[in-house]
Formats: sequence, structure tokens, C-alpha cells
Amino acid sequence: MKTPLIEPVKADLAETAQQRLDSLTKPKGSLGRLEEFARRIVSIRDEKFPSFPQKKAIFTFAGDHGVVDEGVSLYPREVTAQMVYNFLNGGAGINVLARHAGSDVIVIDIGVDHDFAETPGLVTKKVLRGTGNMRKEPAMEREDAERCIAVGMDLAREYALQGYTLFGTGDMGIGNTTASSAIAAVITNMPVAKVTGRGTGITDEGLAHKIRVIEDAIALNKPDPGDPVDILAKVGGTEIGGIAGLILGAAAQRIPVVVDGFISTAGALIAWSIEPAVRDYMFAAHSSVEIGHKAMLDAMGLRPILDLDLRLGEGTGAALAMILIEAGLKIYLEMATFHEAGVSTEVP
Amino acid sequence: MKTPLIEPVKADLAETAQQRLDSLTKPKGSLGRLEEFARRIVSIRDEKFPSFPQKKAIFTFAGDHGVVDEGVSLYPREVTAQMVYNFLNGGAGINVLARHAGSDVIVIDIGVDHDFAETPGLVTKKVLRGTGNMRKEPAMEREDAERCIAVGMDLAREYALQGYTLFGTGDMGIGNTTASSAIAAVITNMPVAKVTGRGTGITDEGLAHKIRVIEDAIALNKPDPGDPVDILAKVGGTEIGGIAGLILGAAAQRIPVVVDGFISTAGALIAWSIEPAVRDYMFAAHSSVEIGHKAMLDAMGLRPILDLDLRLGEGTGAALAMILIEAGLKIYLEMATFHEAGVSTEVP
Repeated sequence: MKTPLIEPVKADLAETAQQRLDSLTKPKGSLGRLEEFARRIVSIRDEKFPSFPQKKAIFTFAGDHGVVDEGVSLYPREVTAQMVYNFLNGGAGINVLARHAGSDVIVIDIGVDHDFAETPGLVTKKVLRGTGNMRKEPAMEREDAERCIAVGMDLAREYALQGYTLFGTGDMGIGNTTASSAIAAVITNMPVAKVTGRGTGITDEGLAHKIRVIEDAIALNKPDPGDPVDILAKVGGTEIGGIAGLILGAAAQRIPVVVDGFISTAGALIAWSIEPAVRDYMFAAHSSVEIGHKAMLDAMGLRPILDLDLRLGEGTGAALAMILIEAGLKIYLEMATFHEAGVSTEVP
Repeated sequence: MKTPLIEPVKADLAETAQQRLDSLTKPKGSLGRLEEFARRIVSIRDEKFPSFPQKKAIFTFAGDHGVVDEGVSLYPREVTAQMVYNFLNGGAGINVLARHAGSDVIVIDIGVDHDFAETPGLVTKKVLRGTGNMRKEPAMEREDAERCIAVGMDLAREYALQGYTLFGTGDMGIGNTTASSAIAAVITNMPVAKVTGRGTGITDEGLAHKIRVIEDAIALNKPDPGDPVDILAKVGGTEIGGIAGLILGAAAQRIPVVVDGFISTAGALIAWSIEPAVRDYMFAAHSSVEIGHKAMLDAMGLRPILDLDLRLGEGTGAALAMILIEAGLKIYLEMATFHEAGVSTEVP
């Protein structure tokens, strides 16, 4: 697979940004993480005064999972396609929160087990009609996993060319916490039980079953921990591959990308395992209720922005985090300096 | 002091709201605290479908502190007045973040040691020209403390009549973390050292000195832990009294009030000690860097919304939290139900 050129961001530009932040009418460092967000945006965009994002997009990748046949979810598989229609009609959680954040929602069919024909508003990039049941076979072929990543990379380039300057990731796929936990277990080398949660809300018994299914899938497929594309193919999902590609593409285009919750972070883990420099371009939106999430973020050294007990996915946490990242940039661009405001600085 | 009638909010309305939240196209409870915010707004406003707040106000109360003479702050006293001008010119942190949140900023001179004459945009409710140095005398007379609370209550009523439906609190006052730590120590019965932090950023030595100053002030003035107005008068501040009054007034008007950080929470503690039912109307905006903040929130049973390492005050955390509270209300008002969207519900 051909991965794009991704350079680490420039530390000196972050220092220049902090100097400006320290000249603003507030005690040094008193806006905490808002200052961090501003510094990071400046160094990612590689401009001392980056313009405020006028065009933002949350990419919600939808795909189905063969492992749903094992009874790992509370919801039937059809819900993936039904929710795609809900996204296109503007009625889902991500629509409400993206409107609140002033972001577009780009809905991509990358692997839904449904024929959408010519559905207006849907971005059709179908690689598969649902993955295989990973308890019985690999979720997909290596070539399909690579195609999923390429879909995400191409979208990042396309939307960068259209003038978008802030991206978020999102997902829809009944069964996809199962695939994400499998990826988390393989990449972080944690026991499956430590990175597997209740998804949409299964019982204790359902959780024990879900853990067994994931353990079986890993034992059967033997994904290579050193080969992220192999992991994505064997125990991943199409939407997770799309997210990984979007993150790689965002980094290549120097566009900050807000990684939503558990499923998006599984995609981020794949992208980071392919190219560790993507870390500089990612913002971790929130701390998910799913127990494996923290281990995944820790592995990449990312600190979540929000902790609101969210576990919906779709990009909902990314939409909210975008608002706070933008708040940091506005502080940087709009606040008066001590000199401009005629305010005394610290007593020496 | 006459306190307004404040009724606890209605639990049955919160249940009705949760039933609607459970009918929306998402797994039950999967939007976590956003759902909590929606439930609470519904029960505070006492309407099944409260309108989205069109008019929001953050009240930034400014006052000076005699205890600054003891060298407890990095900044000189004049900064309080200089920052008031900065607020009125739109250049401060609170201006930037309130604009981001679509909120007005109401700047109140309740106790600044400066003659603003006829300054356009400033709400003049001066009770004192700075408090007394609490290490040598009470910060103010009991009657002045009551006047400060009345200022806040009156503002809440006035802005409620103007159609505002969401309030936030804010503060400006060099030296006011010292007064807030004193209030926290007296009301939570914690040692001063456990509730005293670095304010604008003092050194280890400065912190040890600040703790001694507060211990001396409490020993000298002997505020009565059972009498919140006595505490406010002896070791508090004018802006803290204004905030306490605003919270009492907001609760009386059934208007949700977002309590900013450390200083605002000291005001909230005073309000809550006067009338515990105000708790139902308060949202704790964020978890401040100031070490005493958690003990204060725990005493009232409030869980902060954000944790962004903020320690600026002014209402900056309240502005950001408003955006998230509104996100919760939009979810409640705008998302499609399973029925409306034709999405299958859980497998029975």
C-alpha cells in the first residue's frame, strides 16, 4: 500500500504561538488546554495566523459486520442502513451536533450490506457488502482493507481541495465495537476482556459472549501485531479502514482531524501503526464509556478533550470537541494583548 | 436578609424527558451527560418542550480586595479596573468565548476601587470601593454583604424579565482566590492549605504566605460556619456576594445558571448555604486547576462538565459549558425518534 508523505509538525511554530498566548490579557497558561489547541492548530496548519475554519466536515463511514451473526449486538444488522437514511434526513445525533458545531456531515457507504441505489447525498464508495464473520473467516481480504484506507485518503484530499480545514471522524456499523475491541487487543497487547465493553448496552452474559467471540476471532485469524493492514483485514471493518485512511490523508494535507470515540480510535490506531507521525495531527475528542478506549489513547499518547459519558459514535463527540478546539483558536486570534488593552502585567 | 422563594425542581418532568430521550434514534443513555443536561433543563424550566435559549447572559462581577495589600497576588490591584475596560472593549477571554457561545456579557462594577464615572456599557452597582484587608479587619459589614447579594438577585430578576433564559456567572477581582479559599475552608471545614492554590501563578513561597494570610484572617474574624452572610462579610468579597445573589435569583426565576470556576463556586457555596434548593438550578461549568475547587463542588454534589485546566475566571468556563448544555437540549428537541426515522429498535 502506498502511504502519503506525512511530516511531523514544527515545534518552533508552537513556541511562537505560545509567545503570543503569553502576551494576551490573562495570567500565563490560565486558559489551559484552549492554549494547547491553539498552539497545535498553528503548528499543524504551519501558519502563524491560521484562518478560522470556515468549512468543517465530519466523515461518517458506514459499514456492516459479519460477526453480527454471532449475536454480539442488541440491534439487528438492518439498523446500519436505516441509520444511513436517518443521517441523510438530518435526524440523527450527529446531524444535530454537527449543525451545532457548524460542520457538514459527509456520509459514506463504504461497506453497508444494503443497496442504496442512487440515494441523494450519500457518498458511495462501497468496498464490500458487509465483512465476513471474523469468528469463521477473515473479515476481508488484504486488498479490500487497502481499498478502504485508500477511500479515506482520497476523501481527505478531495475535501482539502474544496477548502475544508478541519475534519472529524465518525462511524456507523452494527457490531463495530466488536471489531474495534479486537483491533485494540491486538495493537495494545491487552487481554480482550480489558478492552471489550457493552457497545449499545448488552448484558453481563452478552459481554462474556462478546469477549469469547473476539478471542476466537483472534485465535483463528492470527492477525500480525506488526502489520496494521493485516489486523484491519482480519478482525477490522470497512468503516474502520475508511477512518484510518481519512486520518492518514488529513495528516498528509496538514489538516487537523478530530478523532471521535471508540471505533474512530480503532481507526486511529491503524493509521498510527502505519505512520506514527499522524499523532501530531489528531485530537482525541472524548473519553468513551467503552472500557478499552483509554488504553488505545494511552498507546498513542493522546489526551481526550471531553468526558461526557458518550458512547454513541457517528462522530458526535468529534462535533462537540471541534467547538472547543475552535474556542482555543479564537482566543489566540481575537483576544487583546496586555499592551493593546493597557493592562498592567505581572509585578516583577 | 429576605431570600426569594425557591422550589426544588420536579422529578416527574425529568422522567418524562428521559422517556422522550429513550425514544430517539440512539441506544438508551448513549449520549450520557448531554441527556442529563436536557432532563435538567426541562425540569428547571418546568416545560416539556422548553424553547432553545435565544438570550443568554454571563454576569461578570468585578470587585477589589483589601487583602491584596498582603502581597497575595502576582498582579497589582489596578488590574481589576483595567480588565473592566478590557471587558467593555471586547478584548478579554470572556468576550471571545461568550461570542463563541452566543452569549452577552454583562459587566458589573459591584466593588472596584476605581471611579468609572459614566462608562458606557458598565452596569454600576457599586457597594464598596474595595473590601477591607481581612487579615486586619472584616472584609465588609454585614449590611454590605447583604447589599451585594441583593444586587445579584435584582439582576437575575431584571434579565429574566428581559427574556433571558440561560445565565452564567463570572468574576474579576485581583486577590479573589484568597477570599474564595477562605470561604471554602470555612464552609467545607477543610484545612486552609487543602483549599488554597496558586491563583494567577504565585511561587511555592507565595503560596505558603497566602495560606498564612487566610489562616490569620479566619482566626481574627471568626466567621460563623452556620451563617453564610457572616462568612461573606468577614472573609468574602463583593463580586462573590453578587454571584451568590445571581444564583439565588436565577433559581427563584427558574433559570438554569452555569457556575464558572473557583471564585464563582465560592459564591455558589454561599448561595447554597443560604438555600440548599439552589443546587437543582446550577450547572458546574468545569473543574478548575485551583485545588480547593473539587471539595467545594463535592460539598454541593455537583459534577463539573469540562476539565480543560482552566484557571482564568471571568466566566470563561461558563461560556464553554453553555455550549454543551445547549447541545444536550438540541439533542432532545431536534433528534428523530425510532418511529419517525423508521429505524428498528432493540432486539427483544
